[in-house]
Amino acid sequence: MEFDIESNISFIEDKINALGQITDQEKPYTRIVFSKEFYDGRSWLNDEFKSLGLSISTDEAGNLVGLLKTNKKTEKLVIMGSHIDTVPSGGRFDGVAGVVSALCVMNHIINNNINLPFDLAVYDYLGEELNDWGTSCIGSRGIGGVLNQEILSRKNTSGLVLSEEIDKIGGNTKLLNNPLPITKNILACLELHIEQGKILEDRKIDIGVVRSIPSISRFSVTVKGQAGHSGTILMNQRSDALVTASEIISFVNKSAIKLSQKSNQHFVATIGKINVHPNSAAIIPGLVEMTIDLRATSKNSRKEFLNILEKKIAFLNDTSSCNINIKDIAFAPFVEMNKDLIQLFKNSASSLGLSNNIMDSGAGHDTAQLSRVAPAGMIFIPCKDGLSHCPEEYAEASDISKGTAVLWKMVEKLAFQNINKT
Amino acid sequence: MEFDIESNISFIEDKINALGQITDQEKPYTRIVFSKEFYDGRSWLNDEFKSLGLSISTDEAGNLVGLLKTNKKTEKLVIMGSHIDTVPSGGRFDGVAGVVSALCVMNHIINNNINLPFDLAVYDYLGEELNDWGTSCIGSRGIGGVLNQEILSRKNTSGLVLSEEIDKIGGNTKLLNNPLPITKNILACLELHIEQGKILEDRKIDIGVVRSIPSISRFSVTVKGQAGHSGTILMNQRSDALVTASEIISFVNKSAIKLSQKSNQHFVATIGKINVHPNSAAIIPGLVEMTIDLRATSKNSRKEFLNILEKKIAFLNDTSSCNINIKDIAFAPFVEMNKDLIQLFKNSASSLGLSNNIMDSGAGHDTAQLSRVAPAGMIFIPCKDGLSHCPEEYAEASDISKGTAVLWKMVEKLAFQNINKT
Repeated sequence: MEFDIESNISFIEDKINALGQITDQEKPYTRIVFSKEFYDGRSWLNDEFKSLGLSISTDEAGNLVGLLKTNKKTEKLVIMGSHIDTVPSGGRFDGVAGVVSALCVMNHIINNNINLPFDLAVYDYLGEELNDWGTSCIGSRGIGGVLNQEILSRKNTSGLVLSEEIDKIGGNTKLLNNPLPITKNILACLELHIEQGKILEDRKIDIGVVRSIPSISRFSVTVKGQAGHSGTILMNQRSDALVTASEIISFVNKSAIKLSQKSNQHFVATIGKINVHPNSAAIIPGLVEMTIDLRATSKNSRKEFLNILEKKIAFLNDTSSCNINIKDIAFAPFVEMNKDLIQLFKNSASSLGLSNNIMDSGAGHDTAQLSRVAPAGMIFIPCKDGLSHCPEEYAEASDISKGTAVLWKMVEKLAFQNINKT
Repeated sequence: MEFDIESNISFIEDKINALGQITDQEKPYTRIVFSKEFYDGRSWLNDEFKSLGLSISTDEAGNLVGLLKTNKKTEKLVIMGSHIDTVPSGGRFDGVAGVVSALCVMNHIINNNINLPFDLAVYDYLGEELNDWGTSCIGSRGIGGVLNQEILSRKNTSGLVLSEEIDKIGGNTKLLNNPLPITKNILACLELHIEQGKILEDRKIDIGVVRSIPSISRFSVTVKGQAGHSGTILMNQRSDALVTASEIISFVNKSAIKLSQKSNQHFVATIGKINVHPNSAAIIPGLVEMTIDLRATSKNSRKEFLNILEKKIAFLNDTSSCNINIKDIAFAPFVEMNKDLIQLFKNSASSLGLSNNIMDSGAGHDTAQLSRVAPAGMIFIPCKDGLSHCPEEYAEASDISKGTAVLWKMVEKLAFQNINKT
């Protein structure tokens, strides 16, 4: 049964708009993991699963699962999904497009009474976005068995313990020491996502088939100076933590520009979060805390960057009258997608007459975590001006529907093809 | 009746400690104007006034006044005071030392049944510290008739209107168009304050007699970039507002260092407050708002600084892919203290055998505002390591008691000396 791209647009549009309404109304679109809005979003998704007649559960890692059990006596499973959490003031499509397209495939299968030789599930992976505990991809890390005790026992700025929040939403963090048992039965993990870049849009390509996902490293940087009166402490008597932090911000930016040009591989570094204490106009800043976010497809560039950053910090510690500390808080390695799935995604798109291209991801994704324990693959669809993680983020429902057709085609092909795990 | 420095130390110590207890317990010492802690502080001071038998009132500008009416048929008045509000995570002495020393002089007069040829008042000037409405010295500006409609109608970040807050605390902002009528009767305004610098401590001087208070200018700087995903937007596609803001922070600091060396006059510039939006580790900053605080005893240095800053901002607007706006939000001009009062303060200190020196203030003070409408003078006492606007701020109660002896001596001398208003 063919999937009709045109007639599924309104399904996709309706679901995207419905989830977009569930936001912190003060700053759309915000649905931070474990917030009231997040719980509301989960409740909406639960209702969607229910109306499709899926069996609903929350797994040990807090992922919400809608399962279509086939009548066959099989334990084998294909999972599709993404995430419904957002960054603060994020967009309506990041993650959501993947969950909605998976719902749409499920709807197509159920409406057409299609039989499959495996179970099929829609996943909302818990908390994909970077959170206040300094980690990301909570649910998919949990599936992969890499949510270790150190991470689980972290407290966020409100004093909440991560493991307790996961258990509260229905998880069971005591059972997260190893990859979840279900991973043995997974034939393939499939994810559709907006590109969050400009390549597809610029080149007018329908489908990006993802080849690799970059390493993501996060570092917390603390700059300690001495707070004091902005009027009475003379310029040469100061230990202004913000002035020293500014040198680091400029240095990180300039170094990343240089390295990305030099290697011609994906390399970006960002300081997106900075807290200044006491942050008052008449007080010299005494303390600055900030986070460096680093993404690289090349080990060498990453190493070179960390090397020159370390030297710069040593230099500033010697010369600036402030004390700087840098701490490694998160790391996700560079991963490549399953080669068979890459090929199958390409074939699926081509067989539907959709233009496609193999490409590297700039962002991290749940699929990077899942690829550690199961065959995993993902596709991108275009988004406007490459904007993401901001309210202006936008993707055409017709483009999502094209991607959904590819996702369905993949499920169909998987019924007839064995995937090599390596 | 002589004032005994030694025996008044414990009075001073007790009052300072009592006010120090009234703080936001999470971040001592914080008593922001109009906060619950501020109202509690006012209530404490009200009780102190009551126990001294003073007549208590709140004037049109929201200043709390404890008045000792003499039996003489005079309208003439000497006022002493400072402020009990603090910056966030400020100290226990800034402002408080001045209020407590004024209480101590009042206590001395009442205990010894001393008659004066004028009324004497203790003032807690409302909200001296820079606040969320972008202004400072609310109460003393109000006395001087310069709290204009533009300032009074400002809303803070919580949406509270300044005039409504002043009225709520007992003021009457409708009557603030001109200097308050009482100013016609003021013989002198006297203030004791901690130096907030290192000069007195380094040179082991008991009393600094203030000659001038610098101009204070505040500017809000807005840097608009484009928020976006920290992983997918390439380095050469970015409009990172924090990177551009960092260039401004470094430039302001370097320029201020240069100008302070060049002019050899008091010149400091600080960016103490910065808000980054959306301030999340995985999002390129789309917007930065910050405040420049500028203090100068030389008009030329101020002009030169603003000139090169304007050029730098024009340059960054042309070259940085961000859009920068700068707005003047507050200005207090350079002022000189009343010459007769300077001389009288010097004589008072010397007659008590206390070492003293004429000096310029680095900080702004209520006395700068009061000097517009009445003879005004102030003295500094030493504080530890020059630290102020931070929890480590410290002054010896014995040093405050020496300053209090000078304050009392001034009141005594004023009974016999006419002050030239100019």
